[in-house]
Amino acid sequence: MAEAYDVIIIGGGPGGLAAASELAPTKHVLVIERNLWGGTCPNFGCDPKKMLYSAVEARDYAARMTGSGITGAPHIDWPALMAFKKRYTDSVPGGTERGLQAQGVTTITGAPELVSPHTVRVAGQRYRGEAIIIATGRTPAMPQVPGAYLLGTSTDFLAMPQLPHTMAFLGAGFVSLELANIAAAAGAQVHIINHSERALRAFPEPAVAQLRALLIKRGVQFHDNVNVTAIAAAETGVRLSGGDFSLTVARAFSAIGRVPALPNGLKALGVAATVRGLTVNDHLQTSVPSIYAVGDVIDKPQPKLTPVAGFEGRYVARQLLGETSPIAYPAQPEIVFSTTKLAQVGVPVATAQAQPDRYAIVTNDVTHWYTYNRVQETDASVTMIEDKRSGQLAGAVVVSTTADELINTVTLLMNAGVSVAQAKEGIYAYPSVTSDLHYLI
Amino acid sequence: MAEAYDVIIIGGGPGGLAAASELAPTKHVLVIERNLWGGTCPNFGCDPKKMLYSAVEARDYAARMTGSGITGAPHIDWPALMAFKKRYTDSVPGGTERGLQAQGVTTITGAPELVSPHTVRVAGQRYRGEAIIIATGRTPAMPQVPGAYLLGTSTDFLAMPQLPHTMAFLGAGFVSLELANIAAAAGAQVHIINHSERALRAFPEPAVAQLRALLIKRGVQFHDNVNVTAIAAAETGVRLSGGDFSLTVARAFSAIGRVPALPNGLKALGVAATVRGLTVNDHLQTSVPSIYAVGDVIDKPQPKLTPVAGFEGRYVARQLLGETSPIAYPAQPEIVFSTTKLAQVGVPVATAQAQPDRYAIVTNDVTHWYTYNRVQETDASVTMIEDKRSGQLAGAVVVSTTADELINTVTLLMNAGVSVAQAKEGIYAYPSVTSDLHYLI
Repeated sequence: MAEAYDVIIIGGGPGGLAAASELAPTKHVLVIERNLWGGTCPNFGCDPKKMLYSAVEARDYAARMTGSGITGAPHIDWPALMAFKKRYTDSVPGGTERGLQAQGVTTITGAPELVSPHTVRVAGQRYRGEAIIIATGRTPAMPQVPGAYLLGTSTDFLAMPQLPHTMAFLGAGFVSLELANIAAAAGAQVHIINHSERALRAFPEPAVAQLRALLIKRGVQFHDNVNVTAIAAAETGVRLSGGDFSLTVARAFSAIGRVPALPNGLKALGVAATVRGLTVNDHLQTSVPSIYAVGDVIDKPQPKLTPVAGFEGRYVARQLLGETSPIAYPAQPEIVFSTTKLAQVGVPVATAQAQPDRYAIVTNDVTHWYTYNRVQETDASVTMIEDKRSGQLAGAVVVSTTADELINTVTLLMNAGVSVAQAKEGIYAYPSVTSDLHYLI
Repeated sequence: MAEAYDVIIIGGGPGGLAAASELAPTKHVLVIERNLWGGTCPNFGCDPKKMLYSAVEARDYAARMTGSGITGAPHIDWPALMAFKKRYTDSVPGGTERGLQAQGVTTITGAPELVSPHTVRVAGQRYRGEAIIIATGRTPAMPQVPGAYLLGTSTDFLAMPQLPHTMAFLGAGFVSLELANIAAAAGAQVHIINHSERALRAFPEPAVAQLRALLIKRGVQFHDNVNVTAIAAAETGVRLSGGDFSLTVARAFSAIGRVPALPNGLKALGVAATVRGLTVNDHLQTSVPSIYAVGDVIDKPQPKLTPVAGFEGRYVARQLLGETSPIAYPAQPEIVFSTTKLAQVGVPVATAQAQPDRYAIVTNDVTHWYTYNRVQETDASVTMIEDKRSGQLAGAVVVSTTADELINTVTLLMNAGVSVAQAKEGIYAYPSVTSDLHYLI
């Protein structure tokens, strides 16, 4: 007989966990995780990546200040950095599962299969839920070329015990630009192989060009307009080739994107999906009414980010607790932690440019402004977009080592519906990134 | 005959400059500066201090990450750091004065004397203004003891071509704790001589104790409950003594506070003042109706900070342009850039503690939270205060290397009147200091 629950959540990552925490006080909840509790973000995604980034930030800050008050810039010790990361990640799955259990949530580790609109089977046992939430996320995509099995993924990169002398990334999205930066800062010879000339398609070109120039300055080599058609083992590693192109590196990684990780059984139940993920309505309900989906597994225009998944998880939980309004997303900032940080939020620059009557766009090269000169930034810019009708900020693009801070400031102001004029009247800790607000728009 | 202006501003610092910029488009404005254009903040205050702090931050970040991914922590090169600072400060006075002139403002460098409610004399020439704004700020206070002339001030510290091997600060306010940290990080043996046991009186005790412990760990020696009654030249520097206490250091600085820098003639005109500064009404008008005052020169409860002076300067300018409302200050965050950063805003903790029915106080030791563990913080805490009646944030105290960022976030939320619940629904760049908001209260 099936064990009965109010809600079964498939996937113990940020989206599923947010839903579980919201439901736990009043509902009988089961969470099923097939791999590591915590999911991609804390185990092999944003969190460990940014721990590696800490060493790069520390090294870069000292390097920038060298000659301006600092002597003896430090180096990155890859094995020690990996050990630092591992001290954190090792505790994630156990801590996460215990956290759920402490909230009264039942946990099962295993591969789930949906066998009815209300039933999930794991290792022969059936579990019944009034509602089921799919929160299974995405996994790295692999190119469909011979020898693709020789490629690693971001997961492999984040667990390399030694730093390879040379490496290549297929793709020029945020995973590639973030990991390439870390490896290059740590001393590797890094190649980015890109099937077009465009990197980071979600971000506007002048800002991407700034970032790309900084990566090149660091020694990263971009190979644009290259289609790798064959991958082969070589004596010293992996040989990538396509047309006239050929490159042998010690290690190569696929960073061409991520694909939805659908649990078994969904298709047989008739749950609608595209190649980009599960189809949901504006209540995050799939085509089968008892089955909801949150996070990266959804086919959606929103960026596939941890805090977006958390927001969706809490939203679906509240729907199951009786709320009825369609989902309304607040502003969703996106950030690339690379040679410098590149962040954006709100109305895209191209959209704003197409509507000059509605939007005012102000771009400042802030490299020599006090805030950035103080820490010897080599390339920093801030674009602010104002909605002329409301007088409120509508968006921003920031390139700087503190872009996270400024983009969050803009996000807060957008969410609060504060006018630009009102924001400029604020008194902020001085001198600081946010205290420049008065001069940025 | 007197040259006639709409407004005469005495003092070319942040308060005076903010007023001048606001008035320049429509009024005939004269600004008089007796020393360096730009005033204390950019010449010998917050800006150069934080440039020195850059090297300390860079060094400290690398030092914290040593053993966790970084090898070879750098050292501070004092002469190079001073040169770095000087590259910035050297351009301030000229750039500031040219900036005013470009706005159509007349500038005079010289010592002003008020000779009537509408008249100022500089080098024998008289200038008449419909209104006069006093924005002369403060200067370092010196102790009234024999040999006080042997002491330097923060201005001297910020221009030392070489780092003395040993030094002492009289006083335990923010100037002392900020400069002591810089000197100790750069390798000096530093003493803080404090007439009581309490440092940084404007900040709550547990947070101050955290900061003090970090300074002691860095090697700074606190001498509490010591009254220095005599200062004498010694072969190797300066000898400070009082009661049983005696200490000889290469260099000693007065950091016992700052006193209002009143221009000559104010007293004869009957402009009301206390020892703490000029008395103003809630329109920042002195007892002589044509004379206003902004910034540190005022006797006021608000913290004496650059952005507060700027806010007041803009406020008075708008009064002169026709606005009539009494001054209403937004939240005023304060920050100490020391061994770590200590920041606060809003309702003081003690006030909140005294009204448990009204305020909820949540304190988290965040040292081991991901955000702080990632950069190997050794001591970080966040106190959030919620107004239970409105559901809004009422204040915060933050101890961390990123306290400026978080205190500005709280300040933005307070100014916007956003509820805690609404703030927690926001999606922020992840992982970042602000994305922790969900868990901080």
